[in-house]
Amino acid sequence: MSEVRQLALNAREASLALARSSSAVRDRALLAMAAALLERADLILAANLLDMEAARGAGTPGPLLDRLMLDAGRIAGIASAIVALAREADPIGEVVSGHRMPNGIWLSQVRVPLGVVAMIYEARPNVTADAAALSIKTANAVILRGGSLAVRSCMAIAEVLADAIASVGLPREAIQYIASTDRAATDQLMSLHGLIDVLIPRGGAGLIRSVVANSKVPVIETGVGNCHIYVHSDADLSMALPIIINAKCQRPGVCNAAESLLVDDAIAGAALPSIVRALADAGVELVGDARSMALGGGSVAVATDDDWGTEYLDMKMSIKVVSGLDEAISHINTYGTKHSEAIITGDYEAAKRFTDEVDAAAVYVNASTRFTDGAEFGLGAEIGISTQKLHARGPMGLVALTSTKFIGMGSGQVR
Amino acid sequence: MSEVRQLALNAREASLALARSSSAVRDRALLAMAAALLERADLILAANLLDMEAARGAGTPGPLLDRLMLDAGRIAGIASAIVALAREADPIGEVVSGHRMPNGIWLSQVRVPLGVVAMIYEARPNVTADAAALSIKTANAVILRGGSLAVRSCMAIAEVLADAIASVGLPREAIQYIASTDRAATDQLMSLHGLIDVLIPRGGAGLIRSVVANSKVPVIETGVGNCHIYVHSDADLSMALPIIINAKCQRPGVCNAAESLLVDDAIAGAALPSIVRALADAGVELVGDARSMALGGGSVAVATDDDWGTEYLDMKMSIKVVSGLDEAISHINTYGTKHSEAIITGDYEAAKRFTDEVDAAAVYVNASTRFTDGAEFGLGAEIGISTQKLHARGPMGLVALTSTKFIGMGSGQVR
Repeated sequence: MSEVRQLALNAREASLALARSSSAVRDRALLAMAAALLERADLILAANLLDMEAARGAGTPGPLLDRLMLDAGRIAGIASAIVALAREADPIGEVVSGHRMPNGIWLSQVRVPLGVVAMIYEARPNVTADAAALSIKTANAVILRGGSLAVRSCMAIAEVLADAIASVGLPREAIQYIASTDRAATDQLMSLHGLIDVLIPRGGAGLIRSVVANSKVPVIETGVGNCHIYVHSDADLSMALPIIINAKCQRPGVCNAAESLLVDDAIAGAALPSIVRALADAGVELVGDARSMALGGGSVAVATDDDWGTEYLDMKMSIKVVSGLDEAISHINTYGTKHSEAIITGDYEAAKRFTDEVDAAAVYVNASTRFTDGAEFGLGAEIGISTQKLHARGPMGLVALTSTKFIGMGSGQVR
Repeated sequence: MSEVRQLALNAREASLALARSSSAVRDRALLAMAAALLERADLILAANLLDMEAARGAGTPGPLLDRLMLDAGRIAGIASAIVALAREADPIGEVVSGHRMPNGIWLSQVRVPLGVVAMIYEARPNVTADAAALSIKTANAVILRGGSLAVRSCMAIAEVLADAIASVGLPREAIQYIASTDRAATDQLMSLHGLIDVLIPRGGAGLIRSVVANSKVPVIETGVGNCHIYVHSDADLSMALPIIINAKCQRPGVCNAAESLLVDDAIAGAALPSIVRALADAGVELVGDARSMALGGGSVAVATDDDWGTEYLDMKMSIKVVSGLDEAISHINTYGTKHSEAIITGDYEAAKRFTDEVDAAAVYVNASTRFTDGAEFGLGAEIGISTQKLHARGPMGLVALTSTKFIGMGSGQVR
């Protein structure tokens, strides 16, 4: 039996104990996890130092090193998020629906854990702790697999957290990390249909595409956001400009940042020059179609067809002048990733059609795409942002890590 | 471009028109579909006659021929179910949640269609009409692919239904049937991630396993049911016997029929002989472990390890004597398919532990597993019974063919 399969069988076994555990025990486990991260920070930081040295030696770029890096402050931040999670309401055990059937059976649909959750992510040690905490909160066992650059840090965190939950009587196999950095281990993980209930990839488009293409385990796709701002002909420019700058520049590396700007032909002459100037002044590299190049006064380079479908995650944006609402909607439905889309308009009918017809997890009128976020939406802790339509769509709160079960209490009924 | 890809692109285009359509138009489309099935029954029956001839010529077994066969009565039954569906409440457009964000954005989570639904099923022409009707009701376009034995019947039905929806102004590409009976066509269909939003296989365990293993499109698994009845030591035998007979014999070919009987060791001596006699008298072939063979008075043949995991869908049942509640729960969680499971007991604690710890879509105390059904549960029309935990679990009503979308109405908010 492969190592990964054995690990999944142990996780499955542990998930049964989790499913029987009380909400109070799981919240105690979360507090123990937070305390252990602080108490054993030295062990984690020592492992992280080794990861950082190896990564620097391999010539890893700065932004990746920054995501990999841990220090006492970051560990304290992770721990305090886990304490906050312990205080959130527990979705497990909620009676979602129920009624007395005409034959007298009492039927209840109750919220239950998924069972075993697996997460594949990039070289970000903090995801190890976040994912483990969300899983324990929802009574799921979790199997973790971070990017190989972070393997020492992730394993140290997983070890500390597994010890912590064991200290309150939960099985330590409920939090497991795949030590092998071999590609074959991921392939095995993706093949364990029946042992793993859901696989959540978190990371870039390439990782997610590969998981979707290869997994036999059900997948929740997250986080790829080729988001648009469409400046309609009736837009208020004093509103459009701050929204565009915010959506592009406030945090360009995240999935709800805007990547592409569509400007209505009727307003392009009046609007584009000042928008281009403001974006260029903010340090955004611009590419566009012929019309936006002509109106952009030399600040807009030529866009290729690939640009319309690209999530830059950087200070770069594509610009296209569209003939009107129809072309804007059709362009977004063609090139977008169904994440977050916005229209800037003062026209009621345009706002209504845009929100009706654009196919995305979140559609905005006169607001930045940056709001698509669990905390902003009031969902509490967020597992990720789903860009698929099954199970969960948009920011996923704790409920996304649950399923339901029908319980029928009878007294001898037959059909 | 492959034929199937082009067909999916057309379905995607049609799905946009569906998404814009009103509930009233879609209900008119359903009534037109029902009327067209009746008016053009001759065309459908002629096609079915050719399918039946070919199937008989190929030596198709009786039960499969029965599922393939259509007559005027069966067509009338299909049509009247579609009329009933038109009268059901429309889930599309429901506001699922919503609030005013602290920054003033009005956020609504609204129920929307999935987009394009694909169904792969066996040689049952009626599924063509059922699936098309459920999809149109929920504003989804649908791509259908039935078993090759039924291709003429299915195509005739799809043709009649597509004409019918066109007559009320909906695009006929919203209902499409894959004409090719080639295996390659199914493979193409399963590869169309991004064009097809969900693939629902309906049929035997082999079909479903193959789709789960090969599909890049998200799948909802349905309908495989290796269901158990566990007779606890505190069972009332006068209640146990009718439930066992009902769960096994009332309709043995369906997924919620019981396939395996677990009897508590403490009650086996008193209970098993009469249970075995009743099952044998009802014509059920029995296989079991050594203990149940010994108690079964020659009516129980030896079971192999494979029997514990087999869904017979026939007048056959496996029997095992278990040491108690723990072994019963563990046996079910090992060999069951997470469909429907029942305990017969008068003991409160046993009932509570069984319903808490058995991992299945539906768990019963003192009632037949046969109740797991959309109509029995009051869900209205049923698309199938999900045995997975994501998106939908147990009988799936219309809501299972929907997703949600967040709409944020702002006035210039930035983050």
